[in-house]
Amino acid sequence: RIVIVNLPSCFLQGILERLDAGEIVIGDGGFVFALEKRGYVKAGPWTPEATVEHPEAVRQLHREFLRAGSNVLQTFTFYASEDKLENRGNYVAEKISCHKVNEAACDIAREVANEGDALVAGGVSQTPSYLSCKDKTEVKAAFQKQLEVFMKKNVDFLIAEYFEHVEEAVWAVEVLKESGKPVAATMCIGPEGDMHGVSPGQCAVQLVKAGASIVGVNCHFDPETCIETVRLMKEGLQAAKLKAHLMCQPLAFHTPDCGKQGFIDLPEFPFGLEPRIATRWDIQKYARKAYDLGIRFIGGCCGFEPYHIRAIAEELAPERGFLPEASEKHGSWGDNLSMHTKPWVRARARKEYWENLKPASGRPYCPCMSKPDGWGVTRGAKELMQQKEATTEQQLKELFQKKKF
Amino acid sequence: RIVIVNLPSCFLQGILERLDAGEIVIGDGGFVFALEKRGYVKAGPWTPEATVEHPEAVRQLHREFLRAGSNVLQTFTFYASEDKLENRGNYVAEKISCHKVNEAACDIAREVANEGDALVAGGVSQTPSYLSCKDKTEVKAAFQKQLEVFMKKNVDFLIAEYFEHVEEAVWAVEVLKESGKPVAATMCIGPEGDMHGVSPGQCAVQLVKAGASIVGVNCHFDPETCIETVRLMKEGLQAAKLKAHLMCQPLAFHTPDCGKQGFIDLPEFPFGLEPRIATRWDIQKYARKAYDLGIRFIGGCCGFEPYHIRAIAEELAPERGFLPEASEKHGSWGDNLSMHTKPWVRARARKEYWENLKPASGRPYCPCMSKPDGWGVTRGAKELMQQKEATTEQQLKELFQKKKF
Amino acid sequence: RIVIVNLPSCFLQGILERLDAGEIVIGDGGFVFALEKRGYVKAGPWTPEATVEHPEAVRQLHREFLRAGSNVLQTFTFYASEDKLENRGNYVAEKISCHKVNEAACDIAREVANEGDALVAGGVSQTPSYLSCKDKTEVKAAFQKQLEVFMKKNVDFLIAEYFEHVEEAVWAVEVLKESGKPVAATMCIGPEGDMHGVSPGQCAVQLVKAGASIVGVNCHFDPETCIETVRLMKEGLQAAKLKAHLMCQPLAFHTPDCGKQGFIDLPEFPFGLEPRIATRWDIQKYARKAYDLGIRFIGGCCGFEPYHIRAIAEELAPERGFLPEASEKHGSWGDNLSMHTKPWVRARARKEYWENLKPASGRPYCPCMSKPDGWGVTRGAKELMQQKEATTEQQLKELFQKKKF
Amino acid sequence: RIVIVNLPSCFLQGILERLDAGEIVIGDGGFVFALEKRGYVKAGPWTPEATVEHPEAVRQLHREFLRAGSNVLQTFTFYASEDKLENRGNYVAEKISCHKVNEAACDIAREVANEGDALVAGGVSQTPSYLSCKDKTEVKAAFQKQLEVFMKKNVDFLIAEYFEHVEEAVWAVEVLKESGKPVAATMCIGPEGDMHGVSPGQCAVQLVKAGASIVGVNCHFDPETCIETVRLMKEGLQAAKLKAHLMCQPLAFHTPDCGKQGFIDLPEFPFGLEPRIATRWDIQKYARKAYDLGIRFIGGCCGFEPYHIRAIAEELAPERGFLPEASEKHGSWGDNLSMHTKPWVRARARKEYWENLKPASGRPYCPCMSKPDGWGVTRGAKELMQQKEATTEQQLKELFQKKKF
Repeated sequence: RIVIVNLPSCFLQGILERLDAGEIVIGDGGFVFALEKRGYVKAGPWTPEATVEHPEAVRQLHREFLRAGSNVLQTFTFYASEDKLENRGNYVAEKISCHKVNEAACDIAREVANEGDALVAGGVSQTPSYLSCKDKTEVKAAFQKQLEVFMKKNVDFLIAEYFEHVEEAVWAVEVLKESGKPVAATMCIGPEGDMHGVSPGQCAVQLVKAGASIVGVNCHFDPETCIETVRLMKEGLQAAKLKAHLMCQPLAFHTPDCGKQGFIDLPEFPFGLEPRIATRWDIQKYARKAYDLGIRFIGGCCGFEPYHIRAIAEELAPERGFLPEASEKHGSWGDNLSMHTKPWVRARARKEYWENLKPASGRPYCPCMSKPDGWGVTRGAKELMQQKEATTEQQLKELFQKKKF
Repeated sequence: RIVIVNLPSCFLQGILERLDAGEIVIGDGGFVFALEKRGYVKAGPWTPEATVEHPEAVRQLHREFLRAGSNVLQTFTFYASEDKLENRGNYVAEKISCHKVNEAACDIAREVANEGDALVAGGVSQTPSYLSCKDKTEVKAAFQKQLEVFMKKNVDFLIAEYFEHVEEAVWAVEVLKESGKPVAATMCIGPEGDMHGVSPGQCAVQLVKAGASIVGVNCHFDPETCIETVRLMKEGLQAAKLKAHLMCQPLAFHTPDCGKQGFIDLPEFPFGLEPRIATRWDIQKYARKAYDLGIRFIGGCCGFEPYHIRAIAEELAPERGFLPEASEKHGSWGDNLSMHTKPWVRARARKEYWENLKPASGRPYCPCMSKPDGWGVTRGAKELMQQKEATTEQQLKELFQKKKF
Repeated sequence: RIVIVNLPSCFLQGILERLDAGEIVIGDGGFVFALEKRGYVKAGPWTPEATVEHPEAVRQLHREFLRAGSNVLQTFTFYASEDKLENRGNYVAEKISCHKVNEAACDIAREVANEGDALVAGGVSQTPSYLSCKDKTEVKAAFQKQLEVFMKKNVDFLIAEYFEHVEEAVWAVEVLKESGKPVAATMCIGPEGDMHGVSPGQCAVQLVKAGASIVGVNCHFDPETCIETVRLMKEGLQAAKLKAHLMCQPLAFHTPDCGKQGFIDLPEFPFGLEPRIATRWDIQKYARKAYDLGIRFIGGCCGFEPYHIRAIAEELAPERGFLPEASEKHGSWGDNLSMHTKPWVRARARKEYWENLKPASGRPYCPCMSKPDGWGVTRGAKELMQQKEATTEQQLKELFQKKKF
Repeated sequence: RIVIVNLPSCFLQGILERLDAGEIVIGDGGFVFALEKRGYVKAGPWTPEATVEHPEAVRQLHREFLRAGSNVLQTFTFYASEDKLENRGNYVAEKISCHKVNEAACDIAREVANEGDALVAGGVSQTPSYLSCKDKTEVKAAFQKQLEVFMKKNVDFLIAEYFEHVEEAVWAVEVLKESGKPVAATMCIGPEGDMHGVSPGQCAVQLVKAGASIVGVNCHFDPETCIETVRLMKEGLQAAKLKAHLMCQPLAFHTPDCGKQGFIDLPEFPFGLEPRIATRWDIQKYARKAYDLGIRFIGGCCGFEPYHIRAIAEELAPERGFLPEASEKHGSWGDNLSMHTKPWVRARARKEYWENLKPASGRPYCPCMSKPDGWGVTRGAKELMQQKEATTEQQLKELFQKKKF
């Protein structure tokens, strides 16, 4: 009934044509986390110089997401603005320019996309310039530089993602919109809204008004929290009588204990998150809930490995009518266990089993939840930041010391 | 002080020369689990036809382990005996012969090994023939066939791994030994010993007597349990006044709740093991303990990703005097967080922090431990199997039904 | 410095004199849970016929709370309204009248109160009459009957407690207020408010307007949640420019996973709550937080044993200047361990140790949180109940069946 | 069918007559922990001066155990040897002599036993004299003094309990045996045996040879561990062709993480054990397993409250033919919930529900297991203690410091 195909014919269309037609578009997963584990990205800076240094590694990860069912390959240009690369540049050889990193990212994504005719999306993300209170012109210039590469390389559409402040996200959308290409925009916020206290609904409204055709959230929170945030965005848009497509690219980590600033404040970030990694079944539940809410651009962010993306494609195969290529190597709901020699392992070859499993951590000396670091600071900081005063590191540090955290 | 190098000059020597000289040899990680998540291996059969179907994916994983510090690249020939491939062959295209899979595996491993001058080890593992009570001649013939490829491709040494029954492991060693190449042998057993109740110490003695120069354990249990098992092997060898090098390649999953047959009986196997995944810090502790026990061939099995192997190389860098290439993208003990904008994240840039962190699971509705499936059967089965009666699936099934598990 | 005394001289004053003077008044703990474990109360009905059947058991528990520091002994008249006793009366011998139960409760409380000059508070709680939609006159008549006994026995003041609906609580306060005695009123609600959606702040305002001098919450939620609810009450009163004393008598169970209707919906209620029992240190933290919020009537409800009340008295001993009698048998912060023969047990004789201990459950196969039963029903029920339609059992049942819970 | 009775006629017989006839004898619960929570015993010293200071509290607890089904009331003489009371006497008024404490304990137990015709057992426990290496004569003299009181007060039989060293337990049995009364002996050991490494089987053999008619274990470990220890005792006796009745009085705390020295080494001892408290259902499982192993004297120790003893009596009611008095206030397997107004609470009124419930801790920030303190010391200490060298506090302290625990 459901067949495995390489190339859905529908894929000759653009992102908006597909979404307008009611199709489900599957995004890809998180490059910085996956490539950190593979040895090509440094945690902390999280910059994408691997596109130049080790293109084969980036290419292989794109290919795995494509096989898993991704319809959109995002250029690996996260944190690839000039200011960021310079800011963290002390460990990257001088010779790797921002320009080169972005160009290589486009070339690799396009090369793999052509293997399956997926779309290529050029991506920009929040900048150190904004966080250090540079003015609008300067911040926009950073996005403009990346956009020039995307235009030259003719990506299919653009994504402004990972913004904690809606003001900066709006500026990014405004820049990208000038290109004439479709623009998607996602913020890394939870139900409490952005760092200045703007609600998800209001964020969505501002982004759409700035020109985004697709809005939603990415990163910082687990699937459940992200879906709740998109729900609030949807309500905000409805109240404002605005229309836009919805998009969701959450973490593949369970983070019920996160505060407003997401998983970065969890004590386990970024080197002890393993016990929080979502199973494929967790992701199938996420895909279903996202679909039921009306989200049609469904992908992932940090923690999403190729098999997590495959789980989205498998969950929504009945709606889409086909399975991704990588399902050749995966039985639905564990049915590939039905030949196991042990009868109790064969008993796991069914949906009810995996759907209801409460997986043990194997860590009896560890707790289930953590208290996020930095709460007190965050609250104090929030007030200061509303007056644009406390965004510098020095100020945060002083605040931190005063509160004796 | 500690430098990052691509190619330690010591690497022009063979495995025994290195171990005899007291050097630390770092193994690689688990291919079937890593490639399952990447979309190239099917859980259940766990067979390595990807060497033919998707050589680029196998090559990339080898390369990542090499970068992470592996000194030995094992050919991806797990479960690649002819009987196994036939047995599970219903989903693999007819045209992929056992011979081709093994040849391709050797070629890919050698290609990557040459990039860093690592050693290539040809590997055989337990066979369906033995489990279905075929006789010694038939079982040995299966190993012989794989060995022919390894000889033709001139691997550097041989590993017989993943044996639950010492009898079959001894047969494998006997076959491999005829080649004249050094032979390592690891069993997938815990401190309780093999499936017929032979203790780890006795297993080690039998393997060394059969010709193995290196003995130890792989798979089925977490690092702590594996080290304990190797400790028992070491004691057995000492008591028998035998000498051999010790080797350890455990799971990268926490399995304190395993029974005698290891993680396969855990309800989470194989699709819900995420919360059990070891952090890099867990692996550093493992590497240190293994070293302290005198183990000098230290690697991993299922669950080990490249960053886990890097953790071994980083933990033992003081002893070895160098870091692996992938450490260019990794600060020791999180020191790459020292530039983070948030002071409480910068506070994580130190050894004490990560060493003492008890990572939360983010899963408050899940337990910490599971009761393994199939216990009753296992015990009953053990007795029957000692008379070589209950190894067939039908018998196990009947036993299972009688016990009403 | 801090002395142990039997009888603080201040205790010759009434409840309002004390609170008006800024003193801390310590309540008692939960009788139905404590006496259920001792064998004198039946879970389910939870009725107090023990005052007649086994007065020595009730007397002993009062005495233990008095020794532990309680300044108020509540008559054991929970669920002792005539309609409740009849409703659950099928197992109580016919001869025990509502009247007798209430009288005996008053006599026992007074007898023990005189041993330490504590105050006696007569208590009423929510009635089946209200829940089955009887009218105001009928419901008030039930309170009136209990009040007659309290007046005859001359209790020191009155408490209307354990109300889920502010409407009924107001009726109770109106009845009790006619007596001329001071009236306290506590609801068993959380931050979401009463079962009809009236917020804690509004509940407090209505109760004070009806004549309550002391308002707060009791039962249904853990200390943290109860303090948050009282905080909302305090804000409501401030906004309405009303003044009242604040009171808090929470569960001694950890219930972070409760829904709006509290611990009754937890799967563990009432026979599997043991792992949730608060330690004495948890209660010291509660006492401190309650004090810091301005709550001056601080006690407990279900789960509070005498040593929990002692913990309140010990935490607030610096403010009060004295310790309770039972502290003769208790070292502050475990200092009585300082003589232990084992050095590592002696190391536990300090505040920092117990304050920071994260006590293990010893239950590795159990989760940390539960999903409350009945959510769907509750939500549906809430809407219906706002139209006063779904309070009958039959209606709830139908609702329940429709939702297929 | 099963009736509630106050006084089983069988109770006119002695302990051995009953056990010889195959009857089940139910012990009582732990006095020091229960009375500590009620405010009458000080943790640390754990001495029973409450028999003189607050006889009403001791009497009430005896009465609750009797109502719950106890057939044996142990005199509250734990740690009431003269050397112990003196040793810890700094806080007990001079005037309370060891003699008085023991006499009062006998009188109270007899008074309550007569209310239901239960048996009274006089109890002795391990002495500081032995632990500080006093000689046999001196240690025996301590037991002799307590025995004189028991003989004067004519207890029904004698129990030597809570011994970590079989040598001292044997001495105690020898003294008690001289009285001519039946003697029971329980050690506070686990499957690893006593502190000098004597196995449970050997301990049982020595105790029976010294004259004990009933042997088993009490305290220090959870029910499961205690049953396993008694199983080893049973095997030891069978191997030695000795006959004795078996007895078990475990903790009502879950302690899967205990080391050889039991719950005292757990970080939670004694003020943070709440999350480990057994439910009544846990105790029913214990009673069944104990019965199935052939244990016929089934009781409890620290943590056992009256409702836990009732759980034993209810579980074994089918075998015994009657329920205890306190079951008037308890429905079997929660059937008293069948009248609850909420359908989902009514759904809990059945055996399957409570039998299978995995109760949540409500503590997501806490782990499931702890690492016992003092391991290293214990192991070192064990070796020294085998030479009778390290039992003094000073030596342990030095050992402790050397190991830097």
